[in-house]
Amino acid sequence: MTDTIGPDVWMQHRVSYGETDTMGVLYYAEYLHIFERGRNAFIRAFGFSYNDVEKRGVYLPVREAGCRYRSSARYDDLLNLRCGISEWRRASFTFHYDIFDESKGRLIAQGFTQHALVNNQGKPLPVPDWFRDSFRSLPSGSGI
Amino acid sequence: MTDTIGPDVWMQHRVSYGETDTMGVLYYAEYLHIFERGRNAFIRAFGFSYNDVEKRGVYLPVREAGCRYRSSARYDDLLNLRCGISEWRRASFTFHYDIFDESKGRLIAQGFTQHALVNNQGKPLPVPDWFRDSFRSLPSGSGI
Amino acid sequence: MTDTIGPDVWMQHRVSYGETDTMGVLYYAEYLHIFERGRNAFIRAFGFSYNDVEKRGVYLPVREAGCRYRSSARYDDLLNLRCGISEWRRASFTFHYDIFDESKGRLIAQGFTQHALVNNQGKPLPVPDWFRDSFRSLPSGSGI
Amino acid sequence: MTDTIGPDVWMQHRVSYGETDTMGVLYYAEYLHIFERGRNAFIRAFGFSYNDVEKRGVYLPVREAGCRYRSSARYDDLLNLRCGISEWRRASFTFHYDIFDESKGRLIAQGFTQHALVNNQGKPLPVPDWFRDSFRSLPSGSGI
Repeated sequence: MTDTIGPDVWMQHRVSYGETDTMGVLYYAEYLHIFERGRNAFIRAFGFSYNDVEKRGVYLPVREAGCRYRSSARYDDLLNLRCGISEWRRASFTFHYDIFDESKGRLIAQGFTQHALVNNQGKPLPVPDWFRDSFRSLPSGSGI
Repeated sequence: MTDTIGPDVWMQHRVSYGETDTMGVLYYAEYLHIFERGRNAFIRAFGFSYNDVEKRGVYLPVREAGCRYRSSARYDDLLNLRCGISEWRRASFTFHYDIFDESKGRLIAQGFTQHALVNNQGKPLPVPDWFRDSFRSLPSGSGI
Repeated sequence: MTDTIGPDVWMQHRVSYGETDTMGVLYYAEYLHIFERGRNAFIRAFGFSYNDVEKRGVYLPVREAGCRYRSSARYDDLLNLRCGISEWRRASFTFHYDIFDESKGRLIAQGFTQHALVNNQGKPLPVPDWFRDSFRSLPSGSGI
Repeated sequence: MTDTIGPDVWMQHRVSYGETDTMGVLYYAEYLHIFERGRNAFIRAFGFSYNDVEKRGVYLPVREAGCRYRSSARYDDLLNLRCGISEWRRASFTFHYDIFDESKGRLIAQGFTQHALVNNQGKPLPVPDWFRDSFRSLPSGSGI
């Protein structure tokens, strides 16, 4: 498990039939969709949404993504995803993801996405203070 | 097979692993992605692309879609898709699709998508003459 | 709104970035994925899962699907989906779906999926009594 | 560009509307679907298919995947994908992928997938000689 900086946020995801493949398991590209749901939930846990980030003129395109597939998930499995920020750089930052089974006893996959910050013309932006400060601590009583 | 008005266009599609599900067959929602590839190929066969349509300020959102699943397709199957226009109305038109197996001997699915014509504010537009005329006949020597 | 037979089940779905397209709206094929989530939730509301159905040797392939797109959904929208059964036939049945916005005040899409019942060799089965009876009434105190 | 061992295989992929997102670009998870199409084309270039591999009792689940996103692809772009094998280990091997634009002048993304070899019970298998030997050289006159 990669150390994350600051709070983690958990969410659940139910595996649908359409996400599985002929091997009967969650298809490998679908994990990146679940990661996206995780970082959306992460941002919402801090009281805003990625839409709000875009409205402030900041876009967060993925520059690099990776995933290690530890064990399989199957149709109807209820997955637990933990998402946190593992690194801040001057003009980018990284989300880290751990996907567990329903009991959280079995690790299914681990991954990351590194995001640049760019304006609406795609020009790199240094991480704004308001953005980084937004994720320092979860609002009290928060839950998803 | 629904009658189409004017020329038909054929394209091929290879079923990927990621398009299949736990039953080992092409997942039902994926047919709508293949239909989209079919109508893109249809438009390209007439010498332009859907991008060119949007550049002229015309958008073609799907108003209704349907599909009848006749038999299954599996991973690595090479499908033959026929696409044509089956109906013109004042402010909408309909694509029809037939999906066959590699030999074209077995019908796998049939479907349609009805499209409105709207401007970039989503306001309905009557079908422009240039649009309808574009699809009257295939350029000679055309092929995809 | 199509009348459904017996109880309806509601679920929520948050639109992800990956489900949207260049027009900025939920892509039309994604509705069929959401319908699948709806019927899975429907079955679970009655105390079992589609996996349990398959374990009893009954598969429910989609024979026909359709969707009317009434208005658009966008990234981060929270959708409300109602799912119910609208028709029983001797060897098939039909789910009906209504998708509303967060307030349930705006109808976004309506659709259906007709399912055959087949055994593990794909041979049609008449609807078993236990299957149809399972959906007569929701367990008391149920909720998703 | 990572060095590959042995021959490379090229294929083309046209970006569909359904593969794009609200930013107007090819969604990041879709690259993994394209990688899968690349390795399928790679295997077919050597005269067989992944189905044939499974028929010999060998499955190739993805153990790790990664992608660096260098520049964007948009709807209707025609992409050129190069796929080759970059590493053989005792019980796994790695595909490497480079995605270029239509002219092959602009690099869009680079990625890899590491695959284990397992039997139909998921038990690891050492790389069989027939498997590794299959990819030493392309059949003369081959093309996709």
